[in-house]
Amino acid sequence: MLVNVIKIGGNVIDNPQKIEEFLSKFSALSGYKILIHGGGKIATKVAEQLGVKTVMVEGRRITDEPMRDVVTMVYGGLVNKQIVAKLQSKNCNAIGLTGADGNSILAEKRKVGAIDYGYVGDVRKVNAEFIKTLLEAGVTPVFAPLTYDKEGNILNTNADTQASSVAVAISKDFKVNLIYCFEKKGVLSDASDDNSVISRLNPELYEKYKQEGVIYEGMIPKLDNAFSAIQNGVNQVIICHADELFDAVELGTAGTSIVI
Amino acid sequence: MLVNVIKIGGNVIDNPQKIEEFLSKFSALSGYKILIHGGGKIATKVAEQLGVKTVMVEGRRITDEPMRDVVTMVYGGLVNKQIVAKLQSKNCNAIGLTGADGNSILAEKRKVGAIDYGYVGDVRKVNAEFIKTLLEAGVTPVFAPLTYDKEGNILNTNADTQASSVAVAISKDFKVNLIYCFEKKGVLSDASDDNSVISRLNPELYEKYKQEGVIYEGMIPKLDNAFSAIQNGVNQVIICHADELFDAVELGTAGTSIVI
Repeated sequence: MLVNVIKIGGNVIDNPQKIEEFLSKFSALSGYKILIHGGGKIATKVAEQLGVKTVMVEGRRITDEPMRDVVTMVYGGLVNKQIVAKLQSKNCNAIGLTGADGNSILAEKRKVGAIDYGYVGDVRKVNAEFIKTLLEAGVTPVFAPLTYDKEGNILNTNADTQASSVAVAISKDFKVNLIYCFEKKGVLSDASDDNSVISRLNPELYEKYKQEGVIYEGMIPKLDNAFSAIQNGVNQVIICHADELFDAVELGTAGTSIVI
Repeated sequence: MLVNVIKIGGNVIDNPQKIEEFLSKFSALSGYKILIHGGGKIATKVAEQLGVKTVMVEGRRITDEPMRDVVTMVYGGLVNKQIVAKLQSKNCNAIGLTGADGNSILAEKRKVGAIDYGYVGDVRKVNAEFIKTLLEAGVTPVFAPLTYDKEGNILNTNADTQASSVAVAISKDFKVNLIYCFEKKGVLSDASDDNSVISRLNPELYEKYKQEGVIYEGMIPKLDNAFSAIQNGVNQVIICHADELFDAVELGTAGTSIVI
């Protein structure tokens, strides 16, 4: 059986119309599927109203205890449950999860180095058996970007990495496609030209584009996750625009394919 | 197989030490179990900080759209996921759910009558099949007091009713005990004397105590839920102190038994 593992970014989450459209497209996909969503800016807004200061280092949120409560509320509660309720209204039998739920994604609190990220987790073990049970029960897992340790802590976790980890873990039991949806049409050879999509990206081209500065910043960790997935058992990895999910998944006519 | 369905109230949720103790006791119970938790006062505190006004009518929270977002965050995110993470640390493989998750509890938005309760749901259908799947997969469902309609809305729902509805629904497949844990030792014959526990309460005694004003206010809807459960297939219904969960469930030596 094929499973589509789809990651949707925070900028789509933040836009009510965009998320509605995206969820309609997601619901319409045939077969087994899993959604992993990012956080979005609403956590920053809620944190501000609650008097919790947002500190970002290289695009990562420093998650002290008050901020951990905020992301648990916003990602695990508001965003996740709104997505689940909307999917249910579109006849997709979704279930919202953090890594703590059903012991689905165990992580380790990141060690304090030059930077103390606080309650941030690096994925250690995905419970593929439980995810399989849910899929076979006809349920669609929807993961918030939260994991946990065995010590009682919810941990803030990068959704790109979480998507890659889930895809790799279930690839032992299923044929898996991993699709990263974001606000661009794919990996671009010219950041200023949205139509300069690189159709196929292999490790050699990736190195070349990185050295030339064509691929940079946030795209690098995303692509590292993508290559890690394709090198560890995932059948196909695609990076595409959220609007083009159907074309990318069902027709193969959109986005960038990561190949080895 | 026996399933213990346990409801824990908001006042325990609000007390970090009490909830820790309670969750240790809950984790230690043998066999299949389900936890349903109330909301607690933290929603009111968070609402205030977010500039959302709390309006209560006869002990019920009026849930307009901003308040719905608050309870979704606090009950479905913060409270529910903290409980799940804590249970996991106590070797209880918990999964946090709202009614929307896995279509587990479908409700209907309450019709606007003399009072407009807003996004408040009355339970219509419990997905016993899915709950059974989870239990048989070795997972312990932990329900937040939230349900949903099929129109994309999360609905605020009374946890006592939710517990009763879940217990009745799964009693077709299992032998079910329903245990309401709260801050008193049981139903009291003298509200000022915590040791005046009525050991066994049948419908005739219940009527008598209501007429005499011995049982009043918040105990009445709780007991109506309790009698409804015992009259609809639940094996045993107990009302007890959260501290006495083990004694009530495993020893039968604490709390009030609801009998017919």
